[in-house]
Amino acid sequence: MPPHKPNTSSPAPGPKPWEHAKPTGSGSAQDELATRFVESLSYDRRLYTHDITGSIAHARMLRKVGLISVKDLAAIEKGLASIRKEIDKQGDAWPGWKIELEDVHMCIEAALIEKVGDAGRKLHTGRSRNDQVALDLKLWVADAVNELDKVFAQVFRGFVLLAQRDGAIVMPSYTHLQRAQPIVVGGEIMAWLAALERCQRRLHALRLLNSDNPLGSGAIAGSCLPLDRKATADQLDALVGPTFNAIDATASRDAALDMAYALAVTAMTLSRWAEQWIIYASTEFSFITLDGRYTTGSSMMPQKRNPDMLELTRGRTGTAYGSLVALLTMCKGITVGYNRDLQEDKRHLFAAYDSVRDSLEMCARIASTTKFNEKTITASLGRGFLDATALAEYLVVRGVPFRTAHQIVGSLVRLCEERNLHELSQLKLEDFNHACAQAKHPRACQSDVYDWLGAANVVKRYRSAGNAGVSGFEIQLKQWDKRLS
Amino acid sequence: MPPHKPNTSSPAPGPKPWEHAKPTGSGSAQDELATRFVESLSYDRRLYTHDITGSIAHARMLRKVGLISVKDLAAIEKGLASIRKEIDKQGDAWPGWKIELEDVHMCIEAALIEKVGDAGRKLHTGRSRNDQVALDLKLWVADAVNELDKVFAQVFRGFVLLAQRDGAIVMPSYTHLQRAQPIVVGGEIMAWLAALERCQRRLHALRLLNSDNPLGSGAIAGSCLPLDRKATADQLDALVGPTFNAIDATASRDAALDMAYALAVTAMTLSRWAEQWIIYASTEFSFITLDGRYTTGSSMMPQKRNPDMLELTRGRTGTAYGSLVALLTMCKGITVGYNRDLQEDKRHLFAAYDSVRDSLEMCARIASTTKFNEKTITASLGRGFLDATALAEYLVVRGVPFRTAHQIVGSLVRLCEERNLHELSQLKLEDFNHACAQAKHPRACQSDVYDWLGAANVVKRYRSAGNAGVSGFEIQLKQWDKRLS
Amino acid sequence: MPPHKPNTSSPAPGPKPWEHAKPTGSGSAQDELATRFVESLSYDRRLYTHDITGSIAHARMLRKVGLISVKDLAAIEKGLASIRKEIDKQGDAWPGWKIELEDVHMCIEAALIEKVGDAGRKLHTGRSRNDQVALDLKLWVADAVNELDKVFAQVFRGFVLLAQRDGAIVMPSYTHLQRAQPIVVGGEIMAWLAALERCQRRLHALRLLNSDNPLGSGAIAGSCLPLDRKATADQLDALVGPTFNAIDATASRDAALDMAYALAVTAMTLSRWAEQWIIYASTEFSFITLDGRYTTGSSMMPQKRNPDMLELTRGRTGTAYGSLVALLTMCKGITVGYNRDLQEDKRHLFAAYDSVRDSLEMCARIASTTKFNEKTITASLGRGFLDATALAEYLVVRGVPFRTAHQIVGSLVRLCEERNLHELSQLKLEDFNHACAQAKHPRACQSDVYDWLGAANVVKRYRSAGNAGVSGFEIQLKQWDKRLS
Amino acid sequence: MPPHKPNTSSPAPGPKPWEHAKPTGSGSAQDELATRFVESLSYDRRLYTHDITGSIAHARMLRKVGLISVKDLAAIEKGLASIRKEIDKQGDAWPGWKIELEDVHMCIEAALIEKVGDAGRKLHTGRSRNDQVALDLKLWVADAVNELDKVFAQVFRGFVLLAQRDGAIVMPSYTHLQRAQPIVVGGEIMAWLAALERCQRRLHALRLLNSDNPLGSGAIAGSCLPLDRKATADQLDALVGPTFNAIDATASRDAALDMAYALAVTAMTLSRWAEQWIIYASTEFSFITLDGRYTTGSSMMPQKRNPDMLELTRGRTGTAYGSLVALLTMCKGITVGYNRDLQEDKRHLFAAYDSVRDSLEMCARIASTTKFNEKTITASLGRGFLDATALAEYLVVRGVPFRTAHQIVGSLVRLCEERNLHELSQLKLEDFNHACAQAKHPRACQSDVYDWLGAANVVKRYRSAGNAGVSGFEIQLKQWDKRLS
Repeated sequence: MPPHKPNTSSPAPGPKPWEHAKPTGSGSAQDELATRFVESLSYDRRLYTHDITGSIAHARMLRKVGLISVKDLAAIEKGLASIRKEIDKQGDAWPGWKIELEDVHMCIEAALIEKVGDAGRKLHTGRSRNDQVALDLKLWVADAVNELDKVFAQVFRGFVLLAQRDGAIVMPSYTHLQRAQPIVVGGEIMAWLAALERCQRRLHALRLLNSDNPLGSGAIAGSCLPLDRKATADQLDALVGPTFNAIDATASRDAALDMAYALAVTAMTLSRWAEQWIIYASTEFSFITLDGRYTTGSSMMPQKRNPDMLELTRGRTGTAYGSLVALLTMCKGITVGYNRDLQEDKRHLFAAYDSVRDSLEMCARIASTTKFNEKTITASLGRGFLDATALAEYLVVRGVPFRTAHQIVGSLVRLCEERNLHELSQLKLEDFNHACAQAKHPRACQSDVYDWLGAANVVKRYRSAGNAGVSGFEIQLKQWDKRLS
Repeated sequence: MPPHKPNTSSPAPGPKPWEHAKPTGSGSAQDELATRFVESLSYDRRLYTHDITGSIAHARMLRKVGLISVKDLAAIEKGLASIRKEIDKQGDAWPGWKIELEDVHMCIEAALIEKVGDAGRKLHTGRSRNDQVALDLKLWVADAVNELDKVFAQVFRGFVLLAQRDGAIVMPSYTHLQRAQPIVVGGEIMAWLAALERCQRRLHALRLLNSDNPLGSGAIAGSCLPLDRKATADQLDALVGPTFNAIDATASRDAALDMAYALAVTAMTLSRWAEQWIIYASTEFSFITLDGRYTTGSSMMPQKRNPDMLELTRGRTGTAYGSLVALLTMCKGITVGYNRDLQEDKRHLFAAYDSVRDSLEMCARIASTTKFNEKTITASLGRGFLDATALAEYLVVRGVPFRTAHQIVGSLVRLCEERNLHELSQLKLEDFNHACAQAKHPRACQSDVYDWLGAANVVKRYRSAGNAGVSGFEIQLKQWDKRLS
Repeated sequence: MPPHKPNTSSPAPGPKPWEHAKPTGSGSAQDELATRFVESLSYDRRLYTHDITGSIAHARMLRKVGLISVKDLAAIEKGLASIRKEIDKQGDAWPGWKIELEDVHMCIEAALIEKVGDAGRKLHTGRSRNDQVALDLKLWVADAVNELDKVFAQVFRGFVLLAQRDGAIVMPSYTHLQRAQPIVVGGEIMAWLAALERCQRRLHALRLLNSDNPLGSGAIAGSCLPLDRKATADQLDALVGPTFNAIDATASRDAALDMAYALAVTAMTLSRWAEQWIIYASTEFSFITLDGRYTTGSSMMPQKRNPDMLELTRGRTGTAYGSLVALLTMCKGITVGYNRDLQEDKRHLFAAYDSVRDSLEMCARIASTTKFNEKTITASLGRGFLDATALAEYLVVRGVPFRTAHQIVGSLVRLCEERNLHELSQLKLEDFNHACAQAKHPRACQSDVYDWLGAANVVKRYRSAGNAGVSGFEIQLKQWDKRLS
Repeated sequence: MPPHKPNTSSPAPGPKPWEHAKPTGSGSAQDELATRFVESLSYDRRLYTHDITGSIAHARMLRKVGLISVKDLAAIEKGLASIRKEIDKQGDAWPGWKIELEDVHMCIEAALIEKVGDAGRKLHTGRSRNDQVALDLKLWVADAVNELDKVFAQVFRGFVLLAQRDGAIVMPSYTHLQRAQPIVVGGEIMAWLAALERCQRRLHALRLLNSDNPLGSGAIAGSCLPLDRKATADQLDALVGPTFNAIDATASRDAALDMAYALAVTAMTLSRWAEQWIIYASTEFSFITLDGRYTTGSSMMPQKRNPDMLELTRGRTGTAYGSLVALLTMCKGITVGYNRDLQEDKRHLFAAYDSVRDSLEMCARIASTTKFNEKTITASLGRGFLDATALAEYLVVRGVPFRTAHQIVGSLVRLCEERNLHELSQLKLEDFNHACAQAKHPRACQSDVYDWLGAANVVKRYRSAGNAGVSGFEIQLKQWDKRLS
């Protein structure tokens, strides 16, 4: 293992029975570096089940339009089913994986021909690897979105669980990482849910943009054979009809880009959550205690409990962003029609998917096992004048224009600071009214002002839809409860 | 103008009538660099009309729930309408732009207070710049998408016009920039239309994800005042209801990210078109002639006609990608709740929008004015064995399994090369059948094989839906015609 | 100001005296969008002084090799000097800026010809805009690096000042944002200095890579005229000799990329510092107090003191990363030789430079005016077992293998936690030795163990070079003192 | 193999002999996802030889300062040497790789302890994984740069070989992909050499920035033990002395960023070369013929010879850019001191290195085996008025100011076009002088003007240093010859 680690093993020498499936003119087998350089098998074998599904749909359509016989179809279906089973079982050890065949498509076709002969030679009728891989990619994306739906469900359940347990704890919210207004813990949890649910909807919206079937577009221009592309699409649940134009169908990688982008925003959202909770887990905040399963120690400092999973979740935003940039770069300025550059799409998309999927699952586990430390949080609720805005709103209700109210409260905060008081409620009614009088609103405050002060009072007073206090949290949680049940 | 060019002019000294609107504690005015460092006015003033629209909707809601009087509302509406007119007319020269007020929001509020006094001081009731700017951004995005719709319409018309004029010309298509199958020019034009129309749908799909109204979320937690957020949303055509959660509403920049991404893919699509046509415009290809308005000359080489607009369209992909990465970077790992970092969202989004919008408009003009050179294209149609795939498909129709047919045609191409023949149609029937026989399919070819050879024949033979030959082009063009009429 | 804001004003109609300098075949003037689309004048006019400097060097060389007369040279030099003075004075208002001339180069040449006639027409002898702009870019980079050196000096002085004032305060250091080992404040300040000083060295190292003179490379292939490229280079302080190859010289934008990258890493470094101090400035940490000039308030919450400048410094990392990606994207996959795409290099480079330069200057001001709150920091020094590593090292000195020592201290930390003790020093000697005995190192501790405990003791005990305790800080500060004096 | 493919296999349950090396508090082993989530062993095992080298240097230093005994050192050295041999031989199958130990460092230390007992437990004295991995990374970078030097040497030899064989062929150069001036093939080859050689120098310049030794910095603050960091550095050839500051040493990933950037620019440079040659290999250009080993065929179109390796080289720019962005993203905004995010640095750096390294090696092979088709190139040399600039320079020599000469040649080009002449040399002397007279330079041309026309004449006339014609090419080739011999 020198600095340069070759990606894959070397090819077998000599002619092989499956060589008939080898593309004409492919000189790469004559040069070991070339073989390694062009292969995508090391990562695209992951598409084998989608490739087989697509091939079966294609074969059935070929039969429907009379291009192959019933017997051919039967042989193809049987052969592909048996290949699928072999790979399910043997995985990377399946002997059909031959690096000199370059990719998953040729390996499976060659194995099929070896199994069923001429029927296998007919499978590629009216098809090119260009439209085949475009289809496989879309089928994989559909599957991956389904898979992510399951993980999103875990995430949602994890946060809802946490909200049900610790959601009512009163805590400060932060803008600019400075104490802003009081909220309940559940108010912030609902924010993560809102953002992540939007991530899920983005994934679906973008997948829908790419749900037309490219198969039947051939290498670039279509086919002179009487393919029935609608019939092919009808057999594939994930897709809804044929693509509009053959050149676009084989040249586009929008399906990969769109998913990579949706993953990148998901990673970004998780990075914000992770950062927030890393800060909450610091000694200074001590707002949360992470479960021991999701912290690790230090090789040098015996006392450490580090939030490594949160840090990795944050850091892996790099993987998602990097994959998106890789795909965007790959597509920039290449001519229309398939170019070999496009082969790399899967490498980047898979990397982003694996990383974000794992981070989501980790998020679900951390969410459901973390504890908010009510005692610590409550102990410091008096700091930071969290009720200043509520006081300004009290003044508004009492007829003071907001800008003036904002000024009055500003002066009261300064008064507290001068007197070394930490809370507005420590001021006397006359202090309040003195400040009001100076702003030409004498006697604006009454003794009920104290009902608007203190974090515990304020969180009960929020009335606007979507608020992060008691009423908002309860309504939002109810909606989530309903959704998840 | 030294290497470092300060962005903006210096602030005015001394207290001003609008100073009451100045945020408490803002020390930046005491340091010229700080003033320049925090201001966003130099770019966010572009939001003035959206800011005013949002403020009017807010004021009407405040009246509806009784937080301000009918008279207050009238004063606010009149004041804002007059400010809007002033800025419409005076633009950057409007005296209300005061850099020490930092942004468009404070400038307009301060001007309003100056005009209408206490009514103006009430406008910010139950509102923070945090939810205000989130709203302005969404309103701007909605407007910008509308504006792009108009430009997309120009682009579509430009390509359809070209397709109607030159679409029937037979030409080679390319994969790997190697000659692949014959198509008609219109087949490729339809590919650009398909890709760009998907760009437009992406813009809309992503905008819809962000069409809920953040106003009423306040600084982060909502408000203790009885705001009616639904009522606000109802007044704003672009939006459909209140956001779910106040913290998410003020912390998220997904609206900016989503649009930046949709613009990036649009730029990428244009870069592929531009590259293709730059190559088509080379002396060696000479497939197209660009209109003189869209080429420029050289300061040194007197004979040049350079496709500069296409090159700039390609190069400006950098602006769109860069803006997307800037936004993604900005959002990575920041805590929830508003952070000042987010202010920069507009800078990047506006840059991407201006650039892509212009490129689209340029694309429309180039598309409608470019000529495909039929003579030159036709002259070389015999090169590159464009009909090889059609010949393989002929053999399939004649009962030869595709893989075997592929091999037979491969050997025929090699035969041509050995004999120095450029076209398969120059072979004799016996040559065809000799190759077939060697592959154990004797007499597979009949004299009708010649009807499948030659680019002009092939483009008429394509039958698969979406093909880039005659039948596919005609159907696709008809659909576009219908859509545009 | 609709969503789309055109970048520049419209061109003047009709033939003008300077039209002779207009590139042949430039059709863009016939279409307003085209004029706006191709112009770079709106941002490259910033290069005027570098352009003139390069032109004078070129003219002197032309005289030296006899291509122009002494009189021509005198006219050119006088004309250019007067143009430089005009622009110095009039800036953007200089009447020579004519958008239909596209760029700074043509504007200045046209103005020169208008001033001095045929001598001006000779200036472009053996030169193209392609090599001219490559030179201007390198001259600008050299100037900008000089300018940054001055700002780096301010930054260094700012941190050294802070270190001299607050550097001796004992504080916790953090890994994973968890309390790690005790350090002195100055130990961390020295880390920022080390990282930023490496940024400065990177800028210089990369500039040196691009310090050869492209002028004399012409449009792409060089010139048939007897240009003396060494003579040109000799007149330009920033450059050291002619480029090796004309095609590479005019096609490369490595000078822009290299600087953009160096700026991106600088922005990244500043983002880490900003994040750290934003956290230090939170109520929960309260480690630092930012000067009032570098915080701002809230439009809604009267009590806020937000670290906006730090947040913007963090967020503007987006601008630097985005510019780098824009440049990398622009250069990806374009053919060799000048392509118009390259024109955009300056737009991105200038944006990155302006942003990072300002952030550095802001960093200098914040560094020199921030106060570390010794009282608050000291009050919590007992938390987090900061001395655990030192204790393990004590055991090592006493003959316990490190891994065993690590285990022993781990068990002692757990013992404290069980007993609700916050500090290791609260344990008795027998507690220490009991744990040692269990790990088969009985009596490893003596009473001097207490000299290794407590943050204040530990910071004095660090002995390794570069340590962040007392001895390391003092040595490092001394080196900086020496460097800056 | 579902859409989600777990990265690694599951951990073994139950306590193991090497558990003593496990970090205290690491709960990850209790959760399979957590184990997989935090491990870096699947990619960082590649560092094993650097890790062992670093450990030996550390152990010798520990001995030197008396922290371990001669016997301990001997045991450690022997143990590590035997582990190195085992891994050399067994690679990924080495039984010491235990995913629950997370990384290469712990696996090797655990294996050492198992082999040599307490001596092994002393190895980590005064060391943390934080400084250990920072060292390993730098040692790997140094090795990788050495490896790249070898590949660069192949690339240089490949291009020089090609230049020696085909360099003298006259061909057009291109700006804007439009024919510009005539050059010799070698003139362009020298451009690729210049650009790639700068890539190599960039790698070295950036590596030098990061050549100080972080070991001895401990977890973050340094050590209370009397480590001699200079002594450690002295044993490591690649490094030159201890880092300045312990916090910076363990927090910085500049070494990874700097190399990733240098690789990104190398990839970009290769993408431009690849694009150029893909275009040259098109039927329309037919400037080059690629060796059969470096083209591949089509699964559908039997006639294809696709430049897949060039396309992949171009497309893999995405990998390099993506890795750089991933690293930049990872580092953005994290606090100082080690954070677990940083672990991912190697994943991205290795991906970029493997990809660019292979592309460079492929470039070397393609360069040395490609043939320029002199006949085809020469056949079209008359097109595009390649000699227009030379004619303008002739006029300059004859006393016409360049701008005027530029205009005259422009009018002559238009005259040719009107008369359907393809070459300036087809005009008569009187045509030349008529155009000169109209520009007020009568009789500027003499019969020797024809010696300046025609590509073959022009390439011999270039005189400026670095030109891409005969003289420039010969000088540049000689320098390369000398360098490589």
